[in-house]
Amino acid sequence: MTISTVQSPVLIHTIRDLRAWRATTTREGQAVGFVPTMGALHDGHLHLLRTARKQCDRVVLSIFVNPAQFAPHEDLATYPRTLDADLALLARSAPTHGPGADPMAASRPLADVVFAPSPAEMYPAGISTDVREQRGTFVEVLGVSHQMEGVTRPHFFRGVATIVLKLFNAVQPDRAYFGQKDVQQCVVLRNMVRDLLLPLTVVTVPTVRSATGLALSSRNRYLTPDQMEPALTLRRALVAASERYETGERRRTHLLKAAHAVFATEPRAQLEYISLAHPVTLAELDVVGQDGAILSGAFRVGTTRLIDNILLGCAL
Amino acid sequence: MTISTVQSPVLIHTIRDLRAWRATTTREGQAVGFVPTMGALHDGHLHLLRTARKQCDRVVLSIFVNPAQFAPHEDLATYPRTLDADLALLARSAPTHGPGADPMAASRPLADVVFAPSPAEMYPAGISTDVREQRGTFVEVLGVSHQMEGVTRPHFFRGVATIVLKLFNAVQPDRAYFGQKDVQQCVVLRNMVRDLLLPLTVVTVPTVRSATGLALSSRNRYLTPDQMEPALTLRRALVAASERYETGERRRTHLLKAAHAVFATEPRAQLEYISLAHPVTLAELDVVGQDGAILSGAFRVGTTRLIDNILLGCAL
Repeated sequence: MTISTVQSPVLIHTIRDLRAWRATTTREGQAVGFVPTMGALHDGHLHLLRTARKQCDRVVLSIFVNPAQFAPHEDLATYPRTLDADLALLARSAPTHGPGADPMAASRPLADVVFAPSPAEMYPAGISTDVREQRGTFVEVLGVSHQMEGVTRPHFFRGVATIVLKLFNAVQPDRAYFGQKDVQQCVVLRNMVRDLLLPLTVVTVPTVRSATGLALSSRNRYLTPDQMEPALTLRRALVAASERYETGERRRTHLLKAAHAVFATEPRAQLEYISLAHPVTLAELDVVGQDGAILSGAFRVGTTRLIDNILLGCAL
Repeated sequence: MTISTVQSPVLIHTIRDLRAWRATTTREGQAVGFVPTMGALHDGHLHLLRTARKQCDRVVLSIFVNPAQFAPHEDLATYPRTLDADLALLARSAPTHGPGADPMAASRPLADVVFAPSPAEMYPAGISTDVREQRGTFVEVLGVSHQMEGVTRPHFFRGVATIVLKLFNAVQPDRAYFGQKDVQQCVVLRNMVRDLLLPLTVVTVPTVRSATGLALSSRNRYLTPDQMEPALTLRRALVAASERYETGERRRTHLLKAAHAVFATEPRAQLEYISLAHPVTLAELDVVGQDGAILSGAFRVGTTRLIDNILLGCAL
């Protein structure tokens, strides 16, 4: 009987050390996969890492709570920062599961490198959550950043695009992995990679859900036990609309009516929006055409804001 | 007797072909220098190429008239596009001059690659000179883009930073060369490279001047013979202020007074601004401190707008 011992990832805090590690992989011709996160790792992140592990020679996980994607009134100060717990989770997670798992592969850590930089390392010009005070270089992806999540969070995708570009330049990955749960982020970053001619591939990985169907999210830990039921409302609404789509319905009004009907039955869930958008331009659709659509939404249960989405007739 | 034949650069139009060429240099461990231009090459550009040739194993010159750095009322349509003349100039220019020049080095072209992409290649989402119509990804360097040249050209450095970042991602140079003549551009791009954690070095190369002292510029060809004299006004004004600096003057009012006095003698030169700014933050200075200063300005002779600068007690 073999007891498999999972190796630990290398923990790197500075760009300089990261570049030195990366230079070695370049010399050895290794493909590098990259999973950027804000930490507070859950099984959704592990699924991204497992996908990267399968497709790449080396895997980098970054953990950085990015000030530029929080507004001054948002939860930057209280966002969970759990580096020790994250490293412990990685240390006990093997890349593959189940009785047929390859013991050699299982002895490698899910990530070869954990890159956990300081804010000063990522923002040499400093960083404020007040956009009016910000100095230095910022990236905007026009046309797909202002709608949906961008309505209530007008500088959110500017913050996301900027930090992801910095991380891409630091890590220089061949492939980068993002969860479909943050679907507008996936679209924004795909457009950014295309527009800026970045030499890498963006991979969108399907959302991981709890047994009840709740999309895994670091913010789920804010939910109290009695909020777990209303937290499923958006998922149920999206599935209801998707079932209409599967039976041939293509009209916006009818698809959204099915979704809104679910919210009407759950007073503990406050709907913010439901969007039916083109999968590349994110333009709202009156009728779903042959390119398909992203059906997505945001809502609150108590003070916790949750998002989810479902793809109708398309892939990302 | 040896007749030296200068080889021609490889002309590349697509990102794909450029990446294939670049992969070869990576495999061979060659350092790549990069000189981005809008074409209409003059001796200032050749000086950038000669500097790159000395410091790098391979040299890429790009020629691309960037729509995003022109305002709708500016000279995008009439900006000189002279690819054939540019290639001919390169073909007859050896990297080194003078009787002591190494004949082997002189047989290599100043640029190994000329990258001349189409607008569609550089702007996959399309591009309009009307900033309100622009879609896709744009980069802004906050804090150093709104003053000086940015006052009359509010989106200019957004356009410059965006295209240079795209070109950096396409070429992936180890070193990039810019002329000091466009001094604010040098500061903006240095800040961008620092902030975005780009793995390359920005090199600022001193301005090349005509025998009379006029800074070489592609726009000098707009000048009529009788405009050549007033075109020297800014250079004379900057030198007058610099002479005051050299004798110990550090006060803004006195330094600028010397410069303005020169403009007062030349009614054919319409001064737009003179700036005395910190060399890193571009904040206007009341007194030049130990970091030194950039003294710069813009003016018009007829319809032609010209810029120039001089460094006081600092290097870029």
